[in-house]
Amino acid sequence: MKENRIYNFNAGPAALPLSVLEEMQHSLLNFNGSGMSIMEVSHRSKWFEAVINDAVARIKRLLALTDDFDVLFLQGGASTQFFMIPMNLLPEGQSADYVNTGTWSTKAIKEVKIQGKSARVVASSEDRNFCYIPKNISFNPDAAYAHITTNNTIKGTQWATMPDTGKVPLVADMSSDILSRPFDPKPFGLIYAGAQKNMGPAGVCVVIIRKDMLARVPQNLPTMLKYTTFAAENSMYNTPPCFAIYTVQLITKWLEEEIGGLEKMAAINQEKGKLLYGFMDAGGFYRATADPGSRSLMNVTFRLPTEELEKRFIEEAGKSGFGGLKGHRSVGGCRASIYNPTTLEAVAALVDFMRTFEKDNG
Amino acid sequence: MKENRIYNFNAGPAALPLSVLEEMQHSLLNFNGSGMSIMEVSHRSKWFEAVINDAVARIKRLLALTDDFDVLFLQGGASTQFFMIPMNLLPEGQSADYVNTGTWSTKAIKEVKIQGKSARVVASSEDRNFCYIPKNISFNPDAAYAHITTNNTIKGTQWATMPDTGKVPLVADMSSDILSRPFDPKPFGLIYAGAQKNMGPAGVCVVIIRKDMLARVPQNLPTMLKYTTFAAENSMYNTPPCFAIYTVQLITKWLEEEIGGLEKMAAINQEKGKLLYGFMDAGGFYRATADPGSRSLMNVTFRLPTEELEKRFIEEAGKSGFGGLKGHRSVGGCRASIYNPTTLEAVAALVDFMRTFEKDNG
Repeated sequence: MKENRIYNFNAGPAALPLSVLEEMQHSLLNFNGSGMSIMEVSHRSKWFEAVINDAVARIKRLLALTDDFDVLFLQGGASTQFFMIPMNLLPEGQSADYVNTGTWSTKAIKEVKIQGKSARVVASSEDRNFCYIPKNISFNPDAAYAHITTNNTIKGTQWATMPDTGKVPLVADMSSDILSRPFDPKPFGLIYAGAQKNMGPAGVCVVIIRKDMLARVPQNLPTMLKYTTFAAENSMYNTPPCFAIYTVQLITKWLEEEIGGLEKMAAINQEKGKLLYGFMDAGGFYRATADPGSRSLMNVTFRLPTEELEKRFIEEAGKSGFGGLKGHRSVGGCRASIYNPTTLEAVAALVDFMRTFEKDNG
Repeated sequence: MKENRIYNFNAGPAALPLSVLEEMQHSLLNFNGSGMSIMEVSHRSKWFEAVINDAVARIKRLLALTDDFDVLFLQGGASTQFFMIPMNLLPEGQSADYVNTGTWSTKAIKEVKIQGKSARVVASSEDRNFCYIPKNISFNPDAAYAHITTNNTIKGTQWATMPDTGKVPLVADMSSDILSRPFDPKPFGLIYAGAQKNMGPAGVCVVIIRKDMLARVPQNLPTMLKYTTFAAENSMYNTPPCFAIYTVQLITKWLEEEIGGLEKMAAINQEKGKLLYGFMDAGGFYRATADPGSRSLMNVTFRLPTEELEKRFIEEAGKSGFGGLKGHRSVGGCRASIYNPTTLEAVAALVDFMRTFEKDNG
C-alpha cells in the first residue's frame, strides 16, 4: 500500500478514502486560496459557509431527502443523541417504543429511563445474545416514536429492511451504516449518526430531523440541547466542529463523484460482504456469528475454532498489514469492519490472508 | 508568507502555529508508524492513548496543575459548559455569583436561569458597554461558585489579575486566553475553554475540574452531561474528538518545546500588546475601545475616525494580506486577535500597514 499504509478494518474511528486524505493533506496550509488552513478560517467566512452548505446539500441528495428534513451537525456523538431524543421528542406522559438489538440500543433505552420517561421494549434479541434482528414486531400505535439501531457494530447484525411502524415516526441510530445503501426516508422522524464510521472522523454527529418533529421541542431546555437551536442557525449557533464537517463534505463528495452515488456504493458493499461471508460459509474454519438474514455488511463478526487460534490470527494478520481485526472487548472473537471506504481490494486481500492462515493452522 | 499564507487575525477559529500545521500535514497519511491517519486509528489504540495522555500531561505541566485537578476533553464548546456548570455544580436551593463582562458572561447567566436556578450578578460593566473589568467586587461567601470570563473577545477586555473570592471556588471561562499566561490555579473549582483560539481547532472544549467538585454532580443526569463520566473514563466514555485532541497535543508541545513555557509565552504576548496598543496610543487615528488596565492582550478592539474609514481599512488590509480585522458583527469597528500563535512579526507587519494607511487616509 502507498506510504506504507495498512489494510484498516477498524470498527471506528475507521478507514477513510485515501483520495480524501490526500486532498486534505494537499490543502492543509492554504484552503481554497484563503491563505489559511480550513482549521484557521472563521466559521462565519465564505470559505466555511461553502463547506457546510455543500455537505448538507450532498447528504440531502445522497439520501434523497426532501425539504421536509433538516440536516444538522451536532457534537457529543450518538451517545449524546441517546438522551437528546427523549428530552426533545418524548413528551411527558407519553411513551416511546425501542427495539433492543445490542449494546447501543441498551444504552439508548437507559438514557430514556434516567430522565424518568417511559421506553417500551417492543422486541429484543437478547435471548440469543443479540445474534439476530427481531421480525414481525408489533409497535404501539400511540408511541411518540419507534427507535431502532440499524446496524450493530459489536454483534455484527443489520436490519436488512426497515420495519413498518405505521404512523409512528421511526427514529434510527444509523451511526455505522448511514450512506452505505439507499432507503426510503419518508417514515423517519429523526436519523442520527456519529460520523466516525462511514462518513468522517470522530467529533461530529449528523442529525437528520423531519421539520414537523421540531414542534415537540420543549421551550425550557438548555439552548445547546434543543434541536431547534441548531435548525434555526444552520448548525452555527456557536462554533461548529469545522474540520470534522469539512471531512464529511469531502467524503460525501467522494461518494457522489468517485463512487457514483448510494446505489453503486450499496452494490460494492454487497460484493464485499458476499466475498467475505461466502468464503467463510464455504469452509468451516471461520464461523460468522450473526444469523443469515441478519448479517451486517459493515461489521463482519466471526470466530475461529479456539481462542488460541483467534489470538494467533489477529497477531499474524497485524504482521501482514491487516489492522483492527480484534472483536469488541465485550464479546471477544474477530471482527472485520468493512465500511464504505474499505475497498473490495482490501477485502479480497483479507480473504487471501484468511485462506493461507487456515492452511497453515487448520 | 510561505505557501501564500496570510497574516491571520481571526477571533476564532484562529491562526495555528505553522510548524504544527506542517507536522500534521507530514503525518496525515501515516501517523507515527501506524500505517493509518490519526483520524483512522481506534481511540482505544496505543497510538491515540499516547496522544491524549500526552495532551493531558502537557496541559497539567503548563498550567502547574497539581493532582487535585482532572483535565477533561468535552464537546459542544463553551456554550455547552454554560449549562453544564450549573447543572452539575449548583445544588438546588443555592445560588452562584456571576460577573457580567459582556456577551459570553450574559449567555452563561441566561443558561443558569433557564434551569430555574439562581445566578446573582455581583458586578457588571454593562453601564459603559462592557469596556472595562469591574473592580473591588463583593462576592457572596455562601455562593456555590463564582463565575468570571477571563477574556472578552467581543469587547476586547481581559482580567489583568484574578479576583479574590475567598473560599468560594472560582469558575472561569478561559476560552480566549487559556495558556497565554501563568496564573495560580489553586482558587479554581473549574476552568473551561473552547480550544479554537489559543489551543487548537474548533471541536473540543478543555474542562479542568478540581476533583472535590465532582462530589456535587447529581446522580440522575444523562450520562453524557455528567463531569464524573468523563473523569472516570479519561474522557473516553464514548469516542472523543480525536483529531481535535491531537491538535491540542501538538500545540501544547509547541508551547513547551518551541516557545519554552507560559512565562515566555506571556512575555511575547506582552510585547505584542505593547507594540499594537503603544502605536495606537501614540497617535490619535486609531482608538482602542477598552479602558487602559482592562485591555485584552488577545483581542485588540479599536475604532477609526469614521465607519467609512473602517470599511476601507479592512478592505485594503485584506488586499495586503491581513485577514480577520473586522470587529464582531454585534459591535462593528475593528479587531485584531493576537492569540499565542500570532507572531510578533505578524503584529509588527500589521503596525506597519496601519501606519501607511493612516498616512494615506489621515
